[in-house]
Amino acid sequence: MLENKNQAKTSLSELGEFKLIDHLTKHAVKHHKDTVKGVGDDCAVIEDTGLQTLVTTDFLIEGVHFDLSYVPLKHLGYKAVMVNLSDIYAMNGRAKQITVSIAVSNRFPLEALEELYEGIHLACNSYKIDLIGGDTTSSTKGLLISITAIGEVSKDQCVYRNGAKANDLLVVSGDLGAAYLGLQVLEREKQVFQVNPNAEHELDAYTYLVERQLKPEARKDVVKLLSDLEVKPTSMIDISDGLSSEVLHLCKQSKTGCQIYEDKIPLDQQVISTCEEFNMDSTTIALSGGEDYELLFTVKQEDFPKIKANPNFSIIGHMTEDTGIVELVTRGGQKVTVTAQGWNALGDD
Amino acid sequence: MLENKNQAKTSLSELGEFKLIDHLTKHAVKHHKDTVKGVGDDCAVIEDTGLQTLVTTDFLIEGVHFDLSYVPLKHLGYKAVMVNLSDIYAMNGRAKQITVSIAVSNRFPLEALEELYEGIHLACNSYKIDLIGGDTTSSTKGLLISITAIGEVSKDQCVYRNGAKANDLLVVSGDLGAAYLGLQVLEREKQVFQVNPNAEHELDAYTYLVERQLKPEARKDVVKLLSDLEVKPTSMIDISDGLSSEVLHLCKQSKTGCQIYEDKIPLDQQVISTCEEFNMDSTTIALSGGEDYELLFTVKQEDFPKIKANPNFSIIGHMTEDTGIVELVTRGGQKVTVTAQGWNALGDD
Repeated sequence: MLENKNQAKTSLSELGEFKLIDHLTKHAVKHHKDTVKGVGDDCAVIEDTGLQTLVTTDFLIEGVHFDLSYVPLKHLGYKAVMVNLSDIYAMNGRAKQITVSIAVSNRFPLEALEELYEGIHLACNSYKIDLIGGDTTSSTKGLLISITAIGEVSKDQCVYRNGAKANDLLVVSGDLGAAYLGLQVLEREKQVFQVNPNAEHELDAYTYLVERQLKPEARKDVVKLLSDLEVKPTSMIDISDGLSSEVLHLCKQSKTGCQIYEDKIPLDQQVISTCEEFNMDSTTIALSGGEDYELLFTVKQEDFPKIKANPNFSIIGHMTEDTGIVELVTRGGQKVTVTAQGWNALGDD
Repeated sequence: MLENKNQAKTSLSELGEFKLIDHLTKHAVKHHKDTVKGVGDDCAVIEDTGLQTLVTTDFLIEGVHFDLSYVPLKHLGYKAVMVNLSDIYAMNGRAKQITVSIAVSNRFPLEALEELYEGIHLACNSYKIDLIGGDTTSSTKGLLISITAIGEVSKDQCVYRNGAKANDLLVVSGDLGAAYLGLQVLEREKQVFQVNPNAEHELDAYTYLVERQLKPEARKDVVKLLSDLEVKPTSMIDISDGLSSEVLHLCKQSKTGCQIYEDKIPLDQQVISTCEEFNMDSTTIALSGGEDYELLFTVKQEDFPKIKANPNFSIIGHMTEDTGIVELVTRGGQKVTVTAQGWNALGDD
């Protein structure tokens, strides 16, 4: 995990906007020669690559998307980048540039932003991303982060949500539910801490869950793996809001239905044991948890041999002709209709 | 000016995030065939155009960048787009796409967002911009808008901040200071209203100032005009933070100095009369006011004949070899060193 090292405090207003941007972006490394101009002009400039351009953007808001009482700023910076890269990979593309805009209230010292940017730079260096611009300003409350990611994909490799056909296989990378449970563990620790600030943290049994919540990795490797296997998915989406919500997106846009087999949903052992401890149903957590940032995609039946034995992939179901209907086939053989229970960004709760 | 028509109130949580996005973007018109995919997938997809891609982004935050007590939401939407397009034009480019992310607290009904998007759509239609994506979420306080604009420019026409040379002429489009004075007028009206809510608004003498503040136009026309005149500026920037701040950017990045002639700075008659009324110095307002969204650029001496008689342009000075030194030559012939007094996004005041 990433550590918080800075304790000093420097007021942001001492620097002013332009010196702050210089300070935070001076360590940015340029990974791509087609990034002609990064930070420092009215726009960033990207050279023509002869490929299609992908654009995605996400807002992260303190008190809505993250809680700084247990999310270290360095992790937050890392995760904020991952959330956006994941959308580029979900198009079967290569992520190449990001812009990062932040707004902060005056309770944040310079050192806090340095920590946030350490995580951003770490993500950029690990994933070969150029930080090409952004905006830095003050907020009236808390920390706000808006990231836009730019990527590229050749026209014949771009994968949309709407290309699935009946009988295509539904495949997911990695495992599901851990990030949501990690959040539950951290929330419980926060409550314990509020009651007794001297209580010892007992997170050893939940390391995988907490890491999946705090430091998710976008599945750049899956895009490469699919390319190496010569499999082009017929549709693809990343799992940010939970499996059920994402499957419904694929079905709605592809005008198909889907059957998911409960016993095929990939779960880590910590997910299973923690669900037992928390008295939660692991299938529900996998379907509705969200923040897994795994890739969910469909492939033609003929690609089955290329996918079946790969430890990175689980074939969890198949598409049907029942447009918009997602059914879960339970371990007992019952069929249950699945509705989206994922996170609603505008919900009341 | 644009009017507020909606009075009904529908809670955002009734719709949920995806229906809200559908609802707000269903009237979006596609202007460019190279916008392959807009809202509705993990990313927007833009076809290869064979040109360089321009990217710029801006944050607008309630209580920091705007005050909804006198800024109608439709104007705010319009202006939020203009602020970003202006940066594309400042590269001598064509703006083609935007993403719009908004976060709102639950005090905003659906009708408020509809009004905001009316302004956004109006801007998109007037400037031929495709709305290709964004993010919609809740905030813990107020309204937050993050817009990213995408544009294109051929490599040989891209204009940076760093290309000015000594003896180049400094040129500005339009006139300066009106937007800042418009804000002062609106602030005064707000105070009058707070003391006496029945007081009549007296804005007739300030229509131009208020319009420049509430409904600025990005200078797309200037990019076309320069092309028609076959003038490629040696450097260019848009005036968002005030003339002095922007000239200093050009000088710093171009490693030149600059002399500005006070009597050449273009001022509207309402700026002059209102400065007298408010007992303000009009030159100071033009230098430090900001939010004019005019284009400030340098041209070679040989382009003087093409620029001099054009009513859209004022030649206000020339570049010098005194790196980083900006001098104002006053009406009295004195030389005064100019420092950046523009808006500091992270300042205490």
